Amino acid sequence: MEPFVGIDLGGTFIKGGLVGASGEILEELQIPTEADGGPAHVLDRMALLVRNLMETGGSSIRAVGIGVPGQVIIDKGLLVEAPNLPCWENVYVAEEMEMRLHIPAILDNDANVAALGEYSYGAGRGSRNMLMVTLGTGVGGGLILNGEVYRGASGGAGEFGHMIIARDGALCGCGRRGCVEAYVGTGGILRILQEHLQADEPSVLIDFDPKTITPKDISKAAEKGDAIARSVLKEAGEWLGVGIGSVANLLNIDRAVIGGGVAAAGAFILDPAAAMTKRTALKVSGGDLSVVPAQLGNAAGLAGAARLAMDLTP
Amino acid sequence: MEPFVGIDLGGTFIKGGLVGASGEILEELQIPTEADGGPAHVLDRMALLVRNLMETGGSSIRAVGIGVPGQVIIDKGLLVEAPNLPCWENVYVAEEMEMRLHIPAILDNDANVAALGEYSYGAGRGSRNMLMVTLGTGVGGGLILNGEVYRGASGGAGEFGHMIIARDGALCGCGRRGCVEAYVGTGGILRILQEHLQADEPSVLIDFDPKTITPKDISKAAEKGDAIARSVLKEAGEWLGVGIGSVANLLNIDRAVIGGGVAAAGAFILDPAAAMTKRTALKVSGGDLSVVPAQLGNAAGLAGAARLAMDLTP
Repeated sequence: MEPFVGIDLGGTFIKGGLVGASGEILEELQIPTEADGGPAHVLDRMALLVRNLMETGGSSIRAVGIGVPGQVIIDKGLLVEAPNLPCWENVYVAEEMEMRLHIPAILDNDANVAALGEYSYGAGRGSRNMLMVTLGTGVGGGLILNGEVYRGASGGAGEFGHMIIARDGALCGCGRRGCVEAYVGTGGILRILQEHLQADEPSVLIDFDPKTITPKDISKAAEKGDAIARSVLKEAGEWLGVGIGSVANLLNIDRAVIGGGVAAAGAFILDPAAAMTKRTALKVSGGDLSVVPAQLGNAAGLAGAARLAMDLTP
Repeated sequence: MEPFVGIDLGGTFIKGGLVGASGEILEELQIPTEADGGPAHVLDRMALLVRNLMETGGSSIRAVGIGVPGQVIIDKGLLVEAPNLPCWENVYVAEEMEMRLHIPAILDNDANVAALGEYSYGAGRGSRNMLMVTLGTGVGGGLILNGEVYRGASGGAGEFGHMIIARDGALCGCGRRGCVEAYVGTGGILRILQEHLQADEPSVLIDFDPKTITPKDISKAAEKGDAIARSVLKEAGEWLGVGIGSVANLLNIDRAVIGGGVAAAGAFILDPAAAMTKRTALKVSGGDLSVVPAQLGNAAGLAGAARLAMDLTP
C-alpha cells in the first residue's frame, strides 16, 4: 500500500511524517509553527511541509491527516478553537489544506489522533474499546469505542483529565477541584511531592529547587531507589487507577494505554495504576481490562493522523 | 407498522407489552416470575406471556425483545449472570425463546433497554449521545453513543453508579468507597438524612423510624416545605451532578435522562443535579448537555425491548 502523510500541528512545531501501511514512519520533518503569523501563515507552512513529504513519497500520496490541538468538528473539517494557537477560531482547516494541496485532507483533535495511532499500530492493537491517557502538564484522553474514535456530541469527548475523582479535593488548573489532572498532571505530582517533603521524610529530592523540579527528576530518583520518589509516583499512579477504574465501570473498556512524558516513570507509576484500576473496576466491567504503556511515543500522532487519511481513500 | 412484543424480566414479575410504532404500550400483561422454579420454568412462563400477547396482537408479531436483569452478550443472546435470578448462569435466553415461540428473540441488559426506550420514544428523543440514570436502591446506568446502545467489551458497560466521585468517601453497597451510588442510591440518601438529623436540625422526618423511612417520605416532606428534606435531596442531587458532569467530560454527551423511583422527587433532586452538572462539565464537553427527567416510567423497559425486536426484522 502507498504511504500516507500525517501531520501533528502543535503550538511550537509542525511535525510531518510519511507513514507506511503498518504505521512505520518512513520520513519525518519538523518546522517551527510560527503561530504568531496567524492561521493563514501556519496553513501555508503546513502545506509546505506536506509538499516536501509528497516529493519524498512520490505521486502516490493520496490524502493527508492532521492532528490539531483543539476542538474539532470532523465532518466539517473545522477547528473550533485551539487554546495554544492564538487567533484560531472556527478555521476550516481541511478545506484550506485541500485548496493548497489538491488532495483530500482530514483533521481531528490531537488526543484522538494519538489514541488512533496507538490503537492501530501500538499498544492498543487487539483491543476494541480503549482509553488512551497522555500524562504531561495536563492529562489528555482519547477514546476508541467499538473500534472507532469516539468524539461525542460536538467533538469534545475524551477529557479524562477532568473527571472528578475526589469532590472538593485538590485544586485543578481548570479551576475545579478533585479532577484526575489535579493528582496525575505535572502540578499534581509536584504537589504530592511537596506534601511528602514537608512531612520531613528524607529524600534526595529535598535538595531540588521546588520551582524547577520536574516529574523526570522524581522518576530518576525513584530509579536510584529513593523511597520518597517511589511513594510519590505510587500515590499518583493510584489516583490514575481510580480514574481508569471509573472509566472501566462506565465503558467496560478492554485496554488503557498510558503515554506522555510522565509515563516515562514506567512501572513506578503504571504498576500502582494497574493495581488500583483492578480494585476500582467491577468484575463485570473491568474483567478484560489491561493497563499498558504506550508504544509509539511521539510517533503516535503522526501514525494516527496518517491512519485517518487512509480512511478518506477507497 | 405492526406492533412488537417487549418483555421486562424481573426477579419478582415478568412484564410484557404489545408496543406500537411510536413506543406506545397497546397491551400490557404481568405475571409472577416464580424465579425459584429455575431458568427452564421461567423461560416457559415468559413464552406463555408472549403467546398471550401474540394472540392479542394477531399473526403480525414478528419478533420479541427482552430486557433482563444481568450481564448479556447480545450477539449470542446469552445471559451471563443475573444477581437477582438464582441459578441463572450462561443461559442462552434468545435461543430458548426462539425454540418455544418460533419467532426471532433478542435480549439486552434491562438498563440498556430502558435507555433505548427513553432514547427512542421518551426524554432522549433528539439526542445522539445520552446517559440514562436509574435511581433506586442501586443507581443504574445505560448509554446511547452515536445513536446506538453502547455495551462495551463484554456487555458490562453502563455502571455509572460505581464511578468513583469521592475517593475514600462514603461506603457503597459494592464494598468500594465514594461511588455515585453511595450518595445517590437509596442507602446514600438515607445516610445523608441521618447526618442532617443528627445535627439536631428540626424536621418532620425526625419522627420516622430510620429503619423504614424511604426516599419517598423525604420527597413528600420536601413538597410540604420541610427544609431538611429539601437539603437532603439537594445534597444528593449535587452528588449526582458531579457524576453526570464527569461523564460529560469523558463522553461529551448531549442528554442525561434521570429515571427510577427516587427521581420522583423531581425538581428537588434534578435542579441541583443539573446545576452541579453545569459546574462540573467543561464548556467544550458539556455545552450541549441538558439534564432532564425520564418520561416513560416503567414503560421504558417494554418500549425499549420492543425497539430492540424491531431491529431484528427487515
